[in-house]
Amino acid sequence: MAGSVATRLNELGLTLPASPKLPPGVTISFEWVRIRGNRVFVSGHGPLAPDGTPAGPFGKVPSEVPLEAAQESARLTALAVIAGLQEAIGDLDRVAGWAMVNGFVNADPGFAQTTLVLNPFSDLILDVFGPEIGVHARTAIGVVTVPLNLPLVVSAEVELS
Amino acid sequence: MAGSVATRLNELGLTLPASPKLPPGVTISFEWVRIRGNRVFVSGHGPLAPDGTPAGPFGKVPSEVPLEAAQESARLTALAVIAGLQEAIGDLDRVAGWAMVNGFVNADPGFAQTTLVLNPFSDLILDVFGPEIGVHARTAIGVVTVPLNLPLVVSAEVELS
Amino acid sequence: MAGSVATRLNELGLTLPASPKLPPGVTISFEWVRIRGNRVFVSGHGPLAPDGTPAGPFGKVPSEVPLEAAQESARLTALAVIAGLQEAIGDLDRVAGWAMVNGFVNADPGFAQTTLVLNPFSDLILDVFGPEIGVHARTAIGVVTVPLNLPLVVSAEVELS
Repeated sequence: MAGSVATRLNELGLTLPASPKLPPGVTISFEWVRIRGNRVFVSGHGPLAPDGTPAGPFGKVPSEVPLEAAQESARLTALAVIAGLQEAIGDLDRVAGWAMVNGFVNADPGFAQTTLVLNPFSDLILDVFGPEIGVHARTAIGVVTVPLNLPLVVSAEVELS
Repeated sequence: MAGSVATRLNELGLTLPASPKLPPGVTISFEWVRIRGNRVFVSGHGPLAPDGTPAGPFGKVPSEVPLEAAQESARLTALAVIAGLQEAIGDLDRVAGWAMVNGFVNADPGFAQTTLVLNPFSDLILDVFGPEIGVHARTAIGVVTVPLNLPLVVSAEVELS
Repeated sequence: MAGSVATRLNELGLTLPASPKLPPGVTISFEWVRIRGNRVFVSGHGPLAPDGTPAGPFGKVPSEVPLEAAQESARLTALAVIAGLQEAIGDLDRVAGWAMVNGFVNADPGFAQTTLVLNPFSDLILDVFGPEIGVHARTAIGVVTVPLNLPLVVSAEVELS
């Protein structure tokens, strides 16, 4: 069944973004995806435009980025994470199981709905990988700043077969 | 020695809460506890009332939830995590070792005592599982929002034998 | 090649701090470094002075701790983590690979440069352990409070051979 995740992405009409392109002056000294044996550690990813540049809207949820826009950013973040995995492991069918997802929302102090922001991330992972492989533990909290003023970043751990 | 953790809970007079019951309108698309081989990933849990509903007080520590109340919330959070583990793995004696605990406190900007909020969580885990199995690495930070405006949530990783 | 990491520390002129010494009244109920099999979980560490006491400057980045000072704190935090690893595992050459680094910066709400704060942490790890072992996934976010009002804390996971 090689290519089943890729087929599923196609069926859902989803296109993965290009590799992350950072703004001028921003350098990183880490790997987007680090593989250790069958464990895969995914750095904090944010939403990307199709060309790999950071995708707006930018700012705090919900005062600058309304809930619905933040949920769309969470979907784009899921696609960015899947793209990062594909680049690192070659074939997405190598993913045997998602383990943990950590969502960090660029939140206003009174915003208690980070769970709702992250649900579209989780839903997309479940849609693409299927419920048995895609299901994961998750934590969703609101933080005071996120790199590049993105509305959220998500880190994760997955396992390869 | 089957049942030794359950016996210890009894000796300490501790009762585990029912499974988490979310408020109307809040849905989740993740698992509270995800098992991958012998590794167990625990989603962010907050304090629960005996019936599984979120337990107050709610709000920021310490302006809305004083330190002592937040510490009691941390104890309830530990019981919620243990209850989640029991439901997922069946028998708490399968836990071979705690690995990592991440505490996220719903904190006022000037509150630098998140360590003290989390200590009762760790102490309860040590009491219930014993020092060799229960000991863990930990990080405790203050975040700007927590789901449902709970005073804290805690995620964790434990290992099964 | 026993001692190669220690040799590299020497070559770079780096000295590891003493074990963490907490201020009066602050107790902890966790381990700084928890080993489970070949996996090593590193608790949130902050910058330490040579004697193991928390190293200033303290406060929020950048209003109380300018970017450059926070970057120096990140370097001291890397040394604190390496010192903690050495104490826990005895010989730093046992580290087979870094896996994940989580950086939590004590940030002002408008500060979107947590990536730049953490880079010197990652750079030092890469310098000391070399690019193949030292490379890691990373997440860097801004949080509202950090224990002891330190400018940042970092947790990590590494693997032993």
